[in-house]
Amino acid sequence: MRFGPLIDQLMEAFRCLPGVGPRSAQRMTLHLLERDRAGGGHLAQVLLRALACVGRCERCRNLSETALCPICSSMRRDAATLCVVETPADVLAIEQAGGYSGLYFVLLGRLSPIDGIGPEELGLEQLLRRVDDEGIREVILATNPTAEGEATAYFITERLRGSRVTVSRIAHGVPLGGELEYVDGGTLLHALQGRKPL
Amino acid sequence: MRFGPLIDQLMEAFRCLPGVGPRSAQRMTLHLLERDRAGGGHLAQVLLRALACVGRCERCRNLSETALCPICSSMRRDAATLCVVETPADVLAIEQAGGYSGLYFVLLGRLSPIDGIGPEELGLEQLLRRVDDEGIREVILATNPTAEGEATAYFITERLRGSRVTVSRIAHGVPLGGELEYVDGGTLLHALQGRKPL
Repeated sequence: MRFGPLIDQLMEAFRCLPGVGPRSAQRMTLHLLERDRAGGGHLAQVLLRALACVGRCERCRNLSETALCPICSSMRRDAATLCVVETPADVLAIEQAGGYSGLYFVLLGRLSPIDGIGPEELGLEQLLRRVDDEGIREVILATNPTAEGEATAYFITERLRGSRVTVSRIAHGVPLGGELEYVDGGTLLHALQGRKPL
Repeated sequence: MRFGPLIDQLMEAFRCLPGVGPRSAQRMTLHLLERDRAGGGHLAQVLLRALACVGRCERCRNLSETALCPICSSMRRDAATLCVVETPADVLAIEQAGGYSGLYFVLLGRLSPIDGIGPEELGLEQLLRRVDDEGIREVILATNPTAEGEATAYFITERLRGSRVTVSRIAHGVPLGGELEYVDGGTLLHALQGRKPL
């Protein structure tokens, strides 16, 4: 015996959120209905508005509420540097780290023939056109250091070979604050191979 | 530089959910906008509908979409037994455990003079009226084993003294599957004092 079909539906609907299992969904449902109806109503309204208004930036493919995202339309960014990332979350991570002032290109995925994701889905033609048209001097490949992310970086490097643009890959190695003891073998090997003279 | 005011608002709005900090809120926002717009739209709609339709059961004060909740209106429950709990989540926990077939009374809180929560806020008059009017034979006090929950249980016991109803308190002791070694001292003392002859 449960509380009712609508409450059950709400518990089920919360499961679409990442990291939310049946217990969290139940807690969220009861919390909003019992203690924070205003917050719940606000969440629903903002969610509907965001779903209706948020699309893609036509230049960098990042999530955006306007045709050009705030980064692409900013005059204070270095328009000669382009950082290629897999997802909008990666843009957010780099922005939150601070210190990067160039532009972005969001692939919205990585090369994955098994899932039917090829160069077309990643907008690589659009990327190459931007490199040609916008006077970009450096392309920084910041795809994830997974097999597919590496393959994507390699593919883009090959496609950019011959153009006058500098192509670079973000450094991989031991994370700051990490202890060697707890770093996995692959990362350690990478850090050793990528050592720099002091 | 962020994605836009609406996306920022959505990240902020998700913070009203229990256990959701800035990172989870960001993940939820990007997940829904990027990968599950249908799920997000469904969540918003169901949430709005639930906020509009879910109220209180007029008999037991539990969350309900109808004047009487499914438990109160069921003919298969034992109407002579009443379990008093603090919150709707407690009802859910007892129902999910199975095995209890009586009715409930939800206090929606516990006695807490500091927060201005007295007998009136907990609907104790309504509880006493139910005990008198409905031919209830046993009242099971299942408030939490905290100082305030105990005080609430004590207060209700005092108020019911003199009526012919049996008042009982749920057992407290070592949880099933728990190891003595890891059980806190208060619980252990409680378990020893509450020992039963075999």
